[in-house]
Amino acid sequence: MTKVRLGIIGIGNIGIHHIKIIADGQTPDIELSAAADILPQQREWASQFLGADFPVYKDGSELINKAKVDAVLIAVPHYGHPDLSIEAFNAGLHVLCEKPGGVYTKKVREMHEAAEKSGKVFAMMFNQRTNSRYKKMRELVTGGSLGAIMRTSWIITDWFRTEAYYTSGGWRGTWDGEGGGVLLNQSPHQLDMFQWICGMPSRVRAFCHEGKWHNIEVEDDVTAYFEYPNGATGTFITSTGETPGTNRFEICMENGKIVNDSGSDLTVYRLAANQREFCKTSKDCYAAPECTVEKPEIEDDNPQHTGVMRSFAEHILRGEPLVAKGQEGINALSLSNAMHLSSWLGKTIEIPFDEDLFLAELNKRRNK
Amino acid sequence: MTKVRLGIIGIGNIGIHHIKIIADGQTPDIELSAAADILPQQREWASQFLGADFPVYKDGSELINKAKVDAVLIAVPHYGHPDLSIEAFNAGLHVLCEKPGGVYTKKVREMHEAAEKSGKVFAMMFNQRTNSRYKKMRELVTGGSLGAIMRTSWIITDWFRTEAYYTSGGWRGTWDGEGGGVLLNQSPHQLDMFQWICGMPSRVRAFCHEGKWHNIEVEDDVTAYFEYPNGATGTFITSTGETPGTNRFEICMENGKIVNDSGSDLTVYRLAANQREFCKTSKDCYAAPECTVEKPEIEDDNPQHTGVMRSFAEHILRGEPLVAKGQEGINALSLSNAMHLSSWLGKTIEIPFDEDLFLAELNKRRNK
Repeated sequence: MTKVRLGIIGIGNIGIHHIKIIADGQTPDIELSAAADILPQQREWASQFLGADFPVYKDGSELINKAKVDAVLIAVPHYGHPDLSIEAFNAGLHVLCEKPGGVYTKKVREMHEAAEKSGKVFAMMFNQRTNSRYKKMRELVTGGSLGAIMRTSWIITDWFRTEAYYTSGGWRGTWDGEGGGVLLNQSPHQLDMFQWICGMPSRVRAFCHEGKWHNIEVEDDVTAYFEYPNGATGTFITSTGETPGTNRFEICMENGKIVNDSGSDLTVYRLAANQREFCKTSKDCYAAPECTVEKPEIEDDNPQHTGVMRSFAEHILRGEPLVAKGQEGINALSLSNAMHLSSWLGKTIEIPFDEDLFLAELNKRRNK
Repeated sequence: MTKVRLGIIGIGNIGIHHIKIIADGQTPDIELSAAADILPQQREWASQFLGADFPVYKDGSELINKAKVDAVLIAVPHYGHPDLSIEAFNAGLHVLCEKPGGVYTKKVREMHEAAEKSGKVFAMMFNQRTNSRYKKMRELVTGGSLGAIMRTSWIITDWFRTEAYYTSGGWRGTWDGEGGGVLLNQSPHQLDMFQWICGMPSRVRAFCHEGKWHNIEVEDDVTAYFEYPNGATGTFITSTGETPGTNRFEICMENGKIVNDSGSDLTVYRLAANQREFCKTSKDCYAAPECTVEKPEIEDDNPQHTGVMRSFAEHILRGEPLVAKGQEGINALSLSNAMHLSSWLGKTIEIPFDEDLFLAELNKRRNK
């Protein structure tokens, strides 16, 4: 194989975006080989854009079964992600799946099993993982020199969407169409990076406000409080109803603090001593370890979707590392499922949570 | 009366601080006329600093009953604030009380009644209200041009204290001595300004971690989630176990946003249209109202304790406005009482809350 022959399933906003990247020659290892959509007007767009001879199928199953492809990129609404991925794995194809992995973790586990069984490559479109600021944050946290995490806080409210956004597609903003709101559609990126950088919390109490800023069924405003296995605490605040939004991610650690505010440079505060030890041994009531401030250099390069697609193909062809393994997608989804469940039941939820209970609660809302 | 004759009750860290301000001539309308402390070594300090003839009493009651004073400044440990204030009012004295007003609101109400009945001046030492940044924030929020509040967030973790701080006084860090931790000792200032600027929330769910960073009974790490009567949400995060701390207060409003980060200028984001209306009427899915950024000029002058004492005397002598009326102290305390109660009971608490229940829960912890 010299190029990965890729079929794109779902020719909506994001599918079109991916098609254009490939057509533009930005992913030299990928050959765009097929596309599929259940809507005639989307297929029509593809035929016009890619030429009348380009193979366009009327749905994902048909593409998987008939097209000459090595891999598929799944970009349909959320509920379709696991089933189509499973079908593709069973047909011996590699899969690059849009976030979220699915709507509920129980289903996503079946997707993992199918991937495992097939031995094929499974990758997630976590395109924000290519952002150098977050890569640097992860390096700083996992590198160890800053010690254990004591507190995390991410305010990510710069996802403002108008009412027109939600009325632009009938599936949007509904439990049955989308399976959630800002937690399933906008914030999976940050939830993924939150756990990628800081690890998974063990408990959550969330307050999800449904239809607060928009005429929708699902949540558009969320505040969540987390506890981590080591006793650290955290908060995650997100909304699609607020402008100008904030994107500020702070991680307090035993030997310092990292602050990433979209309005300023990534900033690292580094202490001359471990603050937990200092706290216990200092004889001065009000003293603190000396602190120096660093502004790490950040690469400008942030290849986003292009980078994820490239690495997917490079991994298939030459074994180079993926941006995000498919199996990692379940963590962000576990966080959002646990947040929903906590808010619905009005109580703190332990992670891992009861996945059957989550599904039963979700289905109550789908079937209303 | 040409000067207010003031007696200072409590010659501890903060009482000494106040004595030095007055002795230094910074409060021309105040004549330092008496001091009291139950500890001989503190009385000794006062006699040495103020001269052997200076009237020093062995406790607050003696000062109130015997000293020639018009007013008292109460700077004893928290539990003593209401009783001494009540005694002073009953003796016809004006009262300037250190924060918090007391440890539980039920008791503080008695203090308000005594103040009312006496007709004397009652003021609280909320010295951070003289900070021009917060005065400006209040002006911006209450001025109306930014519209209704949608979300608040205050991370105020720059109260790092070592273990030595808590062992420096036996009363520190205990339910019976101090009645609380960071919420009663360090953060009352911010809780006061939080309500002064944004108004009182109607519900709270708090997570107070007791003895988390120090070997103490009380909380030294708190995350609280609030809901306001208009549906807005908020968070308040504080700790004495974290360095370098953060002090970042953000208020999102219908027509903009205010961000006060101690590391940068006070920043106001002002929208060209009300975002709630824009959200409902825009035909563009991803558009938002135009936003301009302002950095309001802030007076350098922040007279802190000196300012509060001056205004107290000026109010008594010439009716000029107080920095903080005594009656306003109960709001910050209501917030912290509600936060404690929520954390102890593990549930959301409506404000106003059950004050008898709070007291019963507090007493359980005092009597352990």
